[in-house]
Amino acid sequence: MSLRRKVWGIIEVAKPGDRGSRYFDIFILSLIFLNVLAVISSSVQFYLEQWEVFFDVFERFSVFVFSIEYLFRIWSCVEDPRFQEPVFGRFRFSMQIMPVIDLLAILPFYLPLFGFEDNRSLRVFRLLRLLRIAKGGRYFVSVRLIGNVVQSKKEELVLAFGMVLMLLIVSSSLLYVCENEVQPDVFSSIPATMWWAIATLTTVGYGDIYPITVMVKIMASITAVFGIGLFALPAGMLGAGFVEEIQKRRQMERSCPHCGKTIP
Amino acid sequence: MSLRRKVWGIIEVAKPGDRGSRYFDIFILSLIFLNVLAVISSSVQFYLEQWEVFFDVFERFSVFVFSIEYLFRIWSCVEDPRFQEPVFGRFRFSMQIMPVIDLLAILPFYLPLFGFEDNRSLRVFRLLRLLRIAKGGRYFVSVRLIGNVVQSKKEELVLAFGMVLMLLIVSSSLLYVCENEVQPDVFSSIPATMWWAIATLTTVGYGDIYPITVMVKIMASITAVFGIGLFALPAGMLGAGFVEEIQKRRQMERSCPHCGKTIP
Amino acid sequence: MSLRRKVWGIIEVAKPGDRGSRYFDIFILSLIFLNVLAVISSSVQFYLEQWEVFFDVFERFSVFVFSIEYLFRIWSCVEDPRFQEPVFGRFRFSMQIMPVIDLLAILPFYLPLFGFEDNRSLRVFRLLRLLRIAKGGRYFVSVRLIGNVVQSKKEELVLAFGMVLMLLIVSSSLLYVCENEVQPDVFSSIPATMWWAIATLTTVGYGDIYPITVMVKIMASITAVFGIGLFALPAGMLGAGFVEEIQKRRQMERSCPHCGKTIP
Amino acid sequence: MSLRRKVWGIIEVAKPGDRGSRYFDIFILSLIFLNVLAVISSSVQFYLEQWEVFFDVFERFSVFVFSIEYLFRIWSCVEDPRFQEPVFGRFRFSMQIMPVIDLLAILPFYLPLFGFEDNRSLRVFRLLRLLRIAKGGRYFVSVRLIGNVVQSKKEELVLAFGMVLMLLIVSSSLLYVCENEVQPDVFSSIPATMWWAIATLTTVGYGDIYPITVMVKIMASITAVFGIGLFALPAGMLGAGFVEEIQKRRQMERSCPHCGKTIP
Repeated sequence: MSLRRKVWGIIEVAKPGDRGSRYFDIFILSLIFLNVLAVISSSVQFYLEQWEVFFDVFERFSVFVFSIEYLFRIWSCVEDPRFQEPVFGRFRFSMQIMPVIDLLAILPFYLPLFGFEDNRSLRVFRLLRLLRIAKGGRYFVSVRLIGNVVQSKKEELVLAFGMVLMLLIVSSSLLYVCENEVQPDVFSSIPATMWWAIATLTTVGYGDIYPITVMVKIMASITAVFGIGLFALPAGMLGAGFVEEIQKRRQMERSCPHCGKTIP
Repeated sequence: MSLRRKVWGIIEVAKPGDRGSRYFDIFILSLIFLNVLAVISSSVQFYLEQWEVFFDVFERFSVFVFSIEYLFRIWSCVEDPRFQEPVFGRFRFSMQIMPVIDLLAILPFYLPLFGFEDNRSLRVFRLLRLLRIAKGGRYFVSVRLIGNVVQSKKEELVLAFGMVLMLLIVSSSLLYVCENEVQPDVFSSIPATMWWAIATLTTVGYGDIYPITVMVKIMASITAVFGIGLFALPAGMLGAGFVEEIQKRRQMERSCPHCGKTIP
Repeated sequence: MSLRRKVWGIIEVAKPGDRGSRYFDIFILSLIFLNVLAVISSSVQFYLEQWEVFFDVFERFSVFVFSIEYLFRIWSCVEDPRFQEPVFGRFRFSMQIMPVIDLLAILPFYLPLFGFEDNRSLRVFRLLRLLRIAKGGRYFVSVRLIGNVVQSKKEELVLAFGMVLMLLIVSSSLLYVCENEVQPDVFSSIPATMWWAIATLTTVGYGDIYPITVMVKIMASITAVFGIGLFALPAGMLGAGFVEEIQKRRQMERSCPHCGKTIP
Repeated sequence: MSLRRKVWGIIEVAKPGDRGSRYFDIFILSLIFLNVLAVISSSVQFYLEQWEVFFDVFERFSVFVFSIEYLFRIWSCVEDPRFQEPVFGRFRFSMQIMPVIDLLAILPFYLPLFGFEDNRSLRVFRLLRLLRIAKGGRYFVSVRLIGNVVQSKKEELVLAFGMVLMLLIVSSSLLYVCENEVQPDVFSSIPATMWWAIATLTTVGYGDIYPITVMVKIMASITAVFGIGLFALPAGMLGAGFVEEIQKRRQMERSCPHCGKTIP
C-alpha cells in the first residue's frame, strides 16, 4: 500500500477497527474542541488579557496542524475513486463543502500576510474562525442527522415556513397600521413590528415592544392565541423529525452489522 | 373559442399544461409580491423618503394592472357556468369573497377622486392596501389549507376557545379583585387584567404587568401551571390540523391524476 | 301535573323538546352573560362613572330575578326523588354545590341590610358576584368536561404536580442560596425565588427577577433546559385529557339518541 | 427475631402490612416535610426574626432524630445480606448514595463543634441542609421514576443535549460577533450571549438582553423559529418518558400482586 493511500486512510473518518485512523480522529477532534473553548473564552475580555500569549501560541499551533491536515487531504484525495484525476480531481475535491470549510477555517490566519489587515476584515476573520466548530461535523452523528431530517421533512417545512411568513406579514402589517399612531417610536415600521410579532408568536416575549391600545391588545391577543400554533409548526416538525431519525438509528443498531439481520 | 373564453382561461388559476395562463399567474403573483415588499419597505421612514417617486410610480402601475385584471374578471366571469346571466351573474360573481378582495385592494387609490381625502380614511386606505397580500391566496396551497383545517376542527376549536374565554374571565376577575388595591394603576380593571392573563397563559410574558402580592403570586402560579395547557389547546389543534392536512395532501399526490389510482 | 312539578321542569336544564324550559334557560343564561359583562365593564372606572345608574338598576333587577329563581328552586326541589322530604330534603338540596353557588351569588346584595357594610366585606362581595359566572356552568358542556378530565387523569396529575412541586422547591432553594448574596433584594427568600422558578419553568419569563452571577446563570440554564419538560406535564395532561373527552363526545353524538345504535 | 433485625425492619421503607415500620416512615416523612417548611420559611427575614427560638429548637430536635436514625441505620444495616460483614459491610453501606445524603444532611450542625465556623462554610451548610429534601426521595414514587426515565431515554437525551449544545455555541458565537460592536456592554462575550440564546430558545425571554441591529434581529428570528424545536427536545423527551413510566406503573398496578396475573 502506497504512503498516499495510508495517509488517506488515516485522515478519513475511522472505519471500525482502524486504530491509527481513530487516534488521529481523536487528536483532531480534541484540537477542534480546544479551539472552540479558546474562541469562547478569548471573547471574555478578562481571559483574553490574562492568557494573551497562550491564546496566540495555541492559535499558531492549531493553524499549523489544520494546515498540514488540509494539505494532506488535498494531496491524498486522489485515492478516492471520485477524485482520481491529479489536477481536476483535486480541484473538484477542494470545492466540496467540507474541504471549503477546512480552508476557510484557517484562511483568516494567512490573509494578513497578503496585506488584508484593516478592522472590517478582522471581524470577518473572527466569524471564519467559528467554522472550526463546523470541522467537527465530520465526526458527529447528530450533525449528519440534521441533513436527513431536513431532507425527509422538506415539503412540510416549506409549507409550514410559508404559513409562518404569511402570518408574520399579515399580523405585523395590521398591528403597524393600528398602533403606529400611538407608539410611533416603537411600532415605527412594518419590519419593526415583525420583531414584535416574532417575539410574541414564538412566545419568547422580551417585553421591549408591546401594544398599549385596547383594540390592538385585543387583536394581538387573538393573533397570539391562534397564531402560536402555526409558529410552533416548523420547530415542532424539526423536533418530530429528529425523534423519528433517532428511533430509525436505534432500530438499525439492533440489526447485525455483518449479515444485516435484526438482533432481537 | 371566443376571446372572452380565452381571457377567462388565462385569468383563472392555471390548469396543468396551460402555458399562457401560467405566465399570467406568475406575472400577477410577482406583482403581488413586489406590492407586499413595497408596503413593508414604504413603512420605513428612511426608504419612504429615499424612494418616494419610485413608490408612487409603482403604486400607479400596480393599481392600473390590478384594475384591468379586475375588469377582465368581471367581463369574462360569465364563462363560468355558475355566473352565466350577463347582469345578475356578474353581480353575484362580484359579491364572491375573492372579487370583493380584488376590488377593495384597488379602491383606496380611486376614492380621493371622489373627494374622500381626510386623514382618517387615509389610515383605512393603508389597511386596504394590505388586502393585496390576500389576492395571493388564490395561488397558494397553504392558504387554502387554512379553510380546510378550520372546517375539520370547527367543533373542537369552538369548545377549546370557549374554555379559553372562561379561564380568561375567571382568572382575570379573581386577580383583579385581589391585586387592584396594591397596584391600582396596573391592574386597573378586569380588561386590563385580561391582558396580563393572556400574556401569562400563552407564556409570552412581556413583563409589562405582573402581580407583586404574595397571595396573588401563588394564585397566578397555580393558574399558570394548569391553565397553560388549556390556552395551548386552540393553537395545538390548529397545528395538529395542519399536519393532518399536509399528510392528506401528500397521500393524494401519490395517486395518479389521470386514473385516480394510488401510486405506490 | 301540579304547579310545583311544572316549575321544577322549567327551572331545571331543558330536556330536548321542552320549549318552555328552554326559553327560561336562555333567559337566565342571557342574564348571566349580561352580568358577566356588567362585572367586567363596571371594573373600568370610566364606564362605572358613566353608567352608574344603569349598573345599579341592572344589579337590582338581576338580584331580583336570581332570588326568585333560587326560591323557586328550593320550593320545587322536592319533586326530585333524591330530595323528597319537605324540610330535610330541601335542606340537603340547598347544601348541594350549585344551589350554594346560587345563594352566594346573590348574598352580597342582601348583607348590607343586616349591617355588614365595611370596606373589607365589600371586597369579598365583589368576589362573590363573580360566582354568577359559575351559575352558567349548569348549562355548558365545556365546564362539565373539566370534571371528567380531572377525574380520568387524577392519578397522573397528582404524580406530575408532585414532581413540579419538588423541582420547584429544589431549584428555588439552590438558586436562593447561590444568588442571595449578590441580589439580596430580589432573591430575598426561597418563596421569592420560587416566583422566579415558576416564571422561568413555565417559560413565561416576565423579566422582573433573573440571576446575574455566571455560575447561577449556568445552574438556571440547566434547570430550564430539563425542567421545562416536567413543568409542562400537568398542563399537557389536562390538554390531552380534553382532546380525549372531546373525541369521546363526538363518537357519542354519532350514536342515535333514540335506539342508541351508532350512526355511521 | 433479634432486636437489630427488628430495628432494620422498622427503619427500612415499610413493606405492605408492616404497621410499626409504616408509623416510623410517616414520622420521619413528616419531620422531613416540616424541615423543608422550616428551611423555606426561615429564608424569609421576617419569619426568621419572629420565630428565631422556635427554628433553633426545631433544628436541634431534627438533627437529634436524624442522627439517631442514621446511627440505627449503620448499626442494623448488617441485616441486609449485601452488607453482612460487621466492619467492611457497614463501611460499604455508609458509602451508598442514600446514607451519604443522610450524613451530609446532619453534618452542618456538628461541624462548628470542630471549629469550622467562618462565613464561607456557613453558606455551604445552608446548602447541605437542603439535602434533607433528598432524604424524602426514599419514600416517593415520583423520585424513583426520574431514575427510570433518564435510564430509558439515556441515548436520546445525550443526542438531543448534544444538538442543544451545538446550536447554543453556534448561535451565540454568530450573534456575539455581529452584535458585540453595537452593544458591547450587553453582548460582552460569547458566554454572555449564551445566556441570551438560552433565554430565547427556551422561549423564557426575560428581556434583560436582546439584539437591536436589524440584521442581527433577522438572524435571531430565524434561529428562534427553527431552534426552539431542538431546544424543546430534551425537555420533551423527559416529559414523554414520564408519561410512559406512569402508564407502565398503571398497567402493573392492574396485575394481581399475589399471582401476577392481569386484572382486567
